[in-house]
Amino acid sequence: MPPTPPAVPAASLSREAGMSLTEQLAARFAERIGQRLMPPGARLPSVRECARRHGVSPTTVVAAYDQLLARGLIEARRQRGFFVREPRPAARAAVGASTPPRARPSPVDATALIRGMFHRPEGAPAAPGLGTLPPHWLDLPLLHGALRRALAQGAGTQALEYGEPAGDARLRGALSARLADFGVPANATQLVTTMGATHALDLVSRSVLQPGDAVLVDEPGWAIEYARLTRLGMRLLPVPRGPQGPDLDAMRALAQAHRPRLYVTVSVLHNPTGAMLSLAHAHQVLKLAEAHDFAIVEDDTYAHLAPPHAPRLAALDALQRTFYVSGFSKILSPGWRVGFVAAPTRWVERLIDTKLLGSLTTPSLMERAIALCLEQGSLRRHAERIGTQLDAARARSVRLALEAGCRFASEPQGLFGWVDVGADTERLAQTMFDDGWLLAPGSLFHATPRPTTLMRVNFATTQEPRFWKALARARDRMP
Amino acid sequence: MPPTPPAVPAASLSREAGMSLTEQLAARFAERIGQRLMPPGARLPSVRECARRHGVSPTTVVAAYDQLLARGLIEARRQRGFFVREPRPAARAAVGASTPPRARPSPVDATALIRGMFHRPEGAPAAPGLGTLPPHWLDLPLLHGALRRALAQGAGTQALEYGEPAGDARLRGALSARLADFGVPANATQLVTTMGATHALDLVSRSVLQPGDAVLVDEPGWAIEYARLTRLGMRLLPVPRGPQGPDLDAMRALAQAHRPRLYVTVSVLHNPTGAMLSLAHAHQVLKLAEAHDFAIVEDDTYAHLAPPHAPRLAALDALQRTFYVSGFSKILSPGWRVGFVAAPTRWVERLIDTKLLGSLTTPSLMERAIALCLEQGSLRRHAERIGTQLDAARARSVRLALEAGCRFASEPQGLFGWVDVGADTERLAQTMFDDGWLLAPGSLFHATPRPTTLMRVNFATTQEPRFWKALARARDRMP
Repeated sequence: MPPTPPAVPAASLSREAGMSLTEQLAARFAERIGQRLMPPGARLPSVRECARRHGVSPTTVVAAYDQLLARGLIEARRQRGFFVREPRPAARAAVGASTPPRARPSPVDATALIRGMFHRPEGAPAAPGLGTLPPHWLDLPLLHGALRRALAQGAGTQALEYGEPAGDARLRGALSARLADFGVPANATQLVTTMGATHALDLVSRSVLQPGDAVLVDEPGWAIEYARLTRLGMRLLPVPRGPQGPDLDAMRALAQAHRPRLYVTVSVLHNPTGAMLSLAHAHQVLKLAEAHDFAIVEDDTYAHLAPPHAPRLAALDALQRTFYVSGFSKILSPGWRVGFVAAPTRWVERLIDTKLLGSLTTPSLMERAIALCLEQGSLRRHAERIGTQLDAARARSVRLALEAGCRFASEPQGLFGWVDVGADTERLAQTMFDDGWLLAPGSLFHATPRPTTLMRVNFATTQEPRFWKALARARDRMP
Repeated sequence: MPPTPPAVPAASLSREAGMSLTEQLAARFAERIGQRLMPPGARLPSVRECARRHGVSPTTVVAAYDQLLARGLIEARRQRGFFVREPRPAARAAVGASTPPRARPSPVDATALIRGMFHRPEGAPAAPGLGTLPPHWLDLPLLHGALRRALAQGAGTQALEYGEPAGDARLRGALSARLADFGVPANATQLVTTMGATHALDLVSRSVLQPGDAVLVDEPGWAIEYARLTRLGMRLLPVPRGPQGPDLDAMRALAQAHRPRLYVTVSVLHNPTGAMLSLAHAHQVLKLAEAHDFAIVEDDTYAHLAPPHAPRLAALDALQRTFYVSGFSKILSPGWRVGFVAAPTRWVERLIDTKLLGSLTTPSLMERAIALCLEQGSLRRHAERIGTQLDAARARSVRLALEAGCRFASEPQGLFGWVDVGADTERLAQTMFDDGWLLAPGSLFHATPRPTTLMRVNFATTQEPRFWKALARARDRMP
């Protein structure tokens, strides 16, 4: 069964547009199907329901569905309604090996859901499922000021050459100092800059693993990580993640049975639960890693939102077998795409090779601008402001969630809440998407998707009563 | 046998520096060994030769080599001299699976050589082997003006979100118009922006291929492409590249025997030979691709230096089974890292998935700035200026090369000359690196490295007589 992603949003069919309502409606569905927001096998709303949602006549809907049928995008199944069609077998056979493999079942299909986070519907009221701070929380003057200073200091001339393979030396120096603050002993020569933390995780995977290798992952955890590892041909070994860290007995048993080469984890403000790794768990995880000789990659994407002195595996381990990954998308700028990895010394050269082979160098202008933000303390002050703002938002959001009859499956901390809404969240996400709300259903966070009543909420985007009221209404309408 | 890369450059040991000459010399070698510019097994110069090169006493060299011995970086072999040491087996065993695989034989070791192109020695007179235009040929005011306009038009706010998965819509629109100029019918929806052309090639490889797949490549061709495909687990099928295109009989035989899924090629201003694909060859290549059902990725990195109306496979094929890749590193800015791929429609979604999984989105600020350069014609005017300048440089360089007793193995065109110097170019490169010249020996361009008297020269950086004189001297000194 393919996942059932959000359907076509109701907003903005217009009687004044150049196209007829029928054409607009058909185009809207066609776009969603093309973007795989409605994958093959997904069911279209009934004619009556679609007419109600879009405020058009059933005749208009029938005409739109006819257009989609004629274009081969959907098919009618007797007594059951309309469904997004599989790509035509004839077309596939004709181009054989040069055609993409058919969409596999999850977790690769997670990319379809994740795209919803980039393609937000126009005029959407908010995105409670978003993984980042909302744009208006970020500090555009800070970013522009840093860019201007970087250019004034001559960083623009770096555009004329490829730049250092390891990344801007000034940023690596500033990062080395910052990491020392929380006990991660990374020399600047152990740091490699990347195009965001996701790219850093990809470089580590491609440097350390061979197709077929087994990899320990937290569950719940982040779908992009599952999907990337799966696409690289790795075998996922999900380890249940508790409030103190991974289930150590489960991890030991998996390590004995499967000889994993890597454990991918978020120690601090774990996505999606917000949980923090305890010192005792950190120590035991490292002992297991030593006993079974696997490496660790610690994704510290939420570092700037973390309480001071939260323990990192990379600190306990002193970067002996732990790769430490972080970036600036969650605090400064998702769009600048700057991240980095601090690596055990013996792995640095291979990481740089992987970076060179995959994309040569990274753009140094934004790296230099971020170095200035770090050196001058403006990033620290900005992070403190965000922290205060987030604390207040979280308090409001938690109160509203509880009033709406939800409960928290783990202690609310950091940016995300892991909420039990008491109804299947994938179906809830689909229903609410029609009203413009983008949710992050729990299925996004499981290596093997299963029905779940959990979902992740972003505290920064769920402070308003109307979201929680809409959620309660949608839930109570569900059969 | 590991390749024998450039040795330690002679320049700039200083009696005034804070370190002794011994320490400086040892540090210089240690750095090169660390960067793998001198890989395990490489031989150090004799004490006498090293002393001569660096203008120091043999005692100083012996003391420096002693320091390197003590640090475990080199070893002495009786009667044979000093060699860069393999990583200690004891250290490897202790960390087992969490240790990088030993450097494999070429072509992966090509990355060591390629790094020489990023780590140029300080104060080096020029880099005849460089793959880009020299920085002073590029137009920094043009770049800064475009950045400023992009920011003034509000493109900076894109920093606050991840941006479109496919890349900046304005750039994709401008690219669609440009590609139409030379007959490549790419709708904006078929374009995906990347972090340079190398990233685009990586995305295509990861989207189309599975480990173990066979891939046709031009030989000679570009080492980074060979190395990446090898690292991804592909089997390389080198096809001899002639002045009109690939050897069609060889390609047919390989296709029949190995069922390749992809052919990676440079049609226009082929790297390193400068050759141009003929229309007749283009037609035959596409017929073979259809008959044997493989896809093609056409790397048009040198598009902006090409004569008008040079035929592209993507134009003949109308993007049915051809991916078209290009970027702006060779004309505007290597450091901005902007490239793109135009893909057959049915592959676009999978390419975007691969991009999202590997690094989410790309930074849109530079993409928007380049869109402005395209829209306003400033890129076209700049490319015309560069073309005129390069024609003059090429004429000078060719004359000097012929005077120095070299001959051209293919017709001099575009940025690169493929030159026969009449001596082994890997050894020549090592010798000349000591004097600060970075060469691109022919072994960089062979899937299976072999001794060759060919090398690639960059016409923009070889216009001065002193390089060709230094080359003639070094060649004539060779045993």
